[in-house]
Amino acid sequence: MKIFNLGEIKRYLNLDRAEAAISKGFYSYSSANTQIPKPGELLFPESSGECHIKYGHITGQPYFVIKISTGFYANNSLGLSSGDGSMQLWCATTGKLRAIFLDEGFLTDVRTALAGRIVARHLAPSVVNCIGVIGSGIQARMQVEHLKNVVECNAICVYSRNRAALNSYCEDMQNKGYVVKMVSSVEEVFAKANFVITTTPAKEALVMKEFIRPGHHITAMGSDGNGKQEIHADAFTAIDRVVVDSRSQCERLGELSYALKAGTIQEKAIHELGEVIANPKVLGRQGDDEITIADLTGVACQDIAIAVAVYEEWGASGG
Amino acid sequence: MKIFNLGEIKRYLNLDRAEAAISKGFYSYSSANTQIPKPGELLFPESSGECHIKYGHITGQPYFVIKISTGFYANNSLGLSSGDGSMQLWCATTGKLRAIFLDEGFLTDVRTALAGRIVARHLAPSVVNCIGVIGSGIQARMQVEHLKNVVECNAICVYSRNRAALNSYCEDMQNKGYVVKMVSSVEEVFAKANFVITTTPAKEALVMKEFIRPGHHITAMGSDGNGKQEIHADAFTAIDRVVVDSRSQCERLGELSYALKAGTIQEKAIHELGEVIANPKVLGRQGDDEITIADLTGVACQDIAIAVAVYEEWGASGG
Repeated sequence: MKIFNLGEIKRYLNLDRAEAAISKGFYSYSSANTQIPKPGELLFPESSGECHIKYGHITGQPYFVIKISTGFYANNSLGLSSGDGSMQLWCATTGKLRAIFLDEGFLTDVRTALAGRIVARHLAPSVVNCIGVIGSGIQARMQVEHLKNVVECNAICVYSRNRAALNSYCEDMQNKGYVVKMVSSVEEVFAKANFVITTTPAKEALVMKEFIRPGHHITAMGSDGNGKQEIHADAFTAIDRVVVDSRSQCERLGELSYALKAGTIQEKAIHELGEVIANPKVLGRQGDDEITIADLTGVACQDIAIAVAVYEEWGASGG
Repeated sequence: MKIFNLGEIKRYLNLDRAEAAISKGFYSYSSANTQIPKPGELLFPESSGECHIKYGHITGQPYFVIKISTGFYANNSLGLSSGDGSMQLWCATTGKLRAIFLDEGFLTDVRTALAGRIVARHLAPSVVNCIGVIGSGIQARMQVEHLKNVVECNAICVYSRNRAALNSYCEDMQNKGYVVKMVSSVEEVFAKANFVITTTPAKEALVMKEFIRPGHHITAMGSDGNGKQEIHADAFTAIDRVVVDSRSQCERLGELSYALKAGTIQEKAIHELGEVIANPKVLGRQGDDEITIADLTGVACQDIAIAVAVYEEWGASGG
C-alpha cells in the first residue's frame, strides 16, 4: 500500500496522460460503462462547511477510487485554506487498499481544470480573442492555465467582487505571462471576451441573457450544489448548445437545474460531455456563431481517472 | 495528520472507552443527533466483491468520520483475507483531514462485536447456560469474546456448514478457555443454548420458528444487504421483542426486511438499540421467558465512535 504525499503526486502527475484518462472517463461514464453512485454529502452549516464523497468504478479497470473533499468557507477567517481532500485507490479484484493520495484537494483542482480543457477542445470558438474570467480563486487561475495549447490566447478579462483577491489574481497571472484587464462588471467581461469561465460560489445568477452574443462560449463551474447559481435561467433561451458533465447531476444541482425549473431549456438540446467526446463532429461546436455552454459539477469518473493516471505513472517509473 | 497502522490502532484501542462511545453513538443516532446518510455501495459481482462507505457526524462532536470497507468473498481462493478497510477522521470545524486508520477492517470487526456486547447488556437472559454460535468466521469468535464480563458463560455450542473452519474455530476457542461443543444442525444449537449469535453470510433462512423457545435471545448479524438472510420471516411471530441497530437500514436490508415483507411483524414492536440504551428498564428484556432478537446491520455511528475513541486515546497519551 502506497501513500502519496503532495510532492509525489505532483511528481507523478503527467497532464497529458491525465487529460486522456479523464476524457476516456467521461466517455465511459456517458456510455454507462461505469458504476458511479450519487455522491455522498455531509453539511456543516455552522462552519459554512461541506464534505463530498465521489466514488466509483470504470468497468474493466483494475481499480476503483473513492475521493473525499471538503470545502469550509469560514476557514479564511482562521487563516486556513478552505479545502482539503484525499483519494483512495482500491483493487477491484481483491478489494485491497492499494494507494492513498494525500492531495489536499490538488487532484480535484487539476481534474476540474482538465475538464475545462476538454470542454475547450470541443466547444471553444475557432478564434478566442480574450478569455473572460468571473471569479478570482484557484479555478480562475487553473482553468486559464490549463487552456494552454488548446486555446491560443493570452489575454484575460477578469471580474471579481473580492477586490483584494482580484488584485493578487492580476499580479499572479501577469507574472505568468498573461495580459490581464480588470473590469468592473460581469457584463464587461462578456463584452470583451468570447470564451468565458465562471468560477464563483455565487448563490444568485451573475450572467444575464442580455450579456450573451453569438459566438460566446461559457464554461460554468461554480454551481455544484447547495443553491449555488451563476447563470440566469433565462440565459439558456439564448444558448444553442448545452453540454453537461453529468445529466443526472446537473439536473439536480447544476446551472441546468434552474433552467429546467424555469422551463427555459428543452431536454433534447442537452448532451453529456462524454457524448460530445464520442461524437465531436456532430455534438461539438457548429460554427463560430453558435452560443455554447458547459455546465460542470464534477463527476467521480474524473477522480477515478486522475488517481489511476498518477498511480500508473508511479508504477511505470518503477514504483 | 496522523496515520495509524494496525499495531498503533490496537495499542490505542481501549475497549471500555470504545464501548461507552459506541453506546453513546447509538443513543445519539436514535435521538436524531447525528447526520448519517445512507451508506455508499459499490458491487463487483465478478469477484463476489462489495465495498461499503459508512460516514457521518454526531452533532456537537469535533470530528466526522468516513469508513470504507470491502468484502471480496472469492479472495480465499487467492490465499487472501476477504476484507480490508480504512477510516478517515476529519475536523468538523475546518474540514481538514486529521487521521487515517489503516485498520484493514479490524475496527469494523471490533465495533460490530461491541454492538453485540451492548445488545447483551440489555437483552441477554439473566442466566445464560450456553452461548450458541451459527458460523465459524471472525465474528463467531469476536462476538463471543466480547461478551466477557457481560454474559457469565464459557460454554459454546457451535454449528457451521464449513467443516474445516468449524474445526479450527473449536480449537481456537478451546485454547481461549471456552468449553466448545460442535453440533450438526442449527436446531441443536437452539436446543442447547439460550443466547444465540448468527454470524453467517447465508442467503437463505437458517433459523426456523420451531427452533425458538421461551427465554431465547438471538443476536443476528449476518444480514447486512445483498439478499443475505439468516432468520426465517415466520420466526418473528414467535419473538416478543425486536431490537434493530437502525430502523431504516434494517427495514431495507436486515432480517427485519423479510419479516416486514412477509407481514410476520408489527411495526410497533420494533425499537432501535439507541432507544433501548435510553430507556433500558422499559425497552430491555422483561423477564427470563421473553424471546428477544437484535438485528444488527452496522451503522456509521459505531464507526465514528470507535475511530474518535482511538484518536482521543492516542491524543490523551501525548499524541
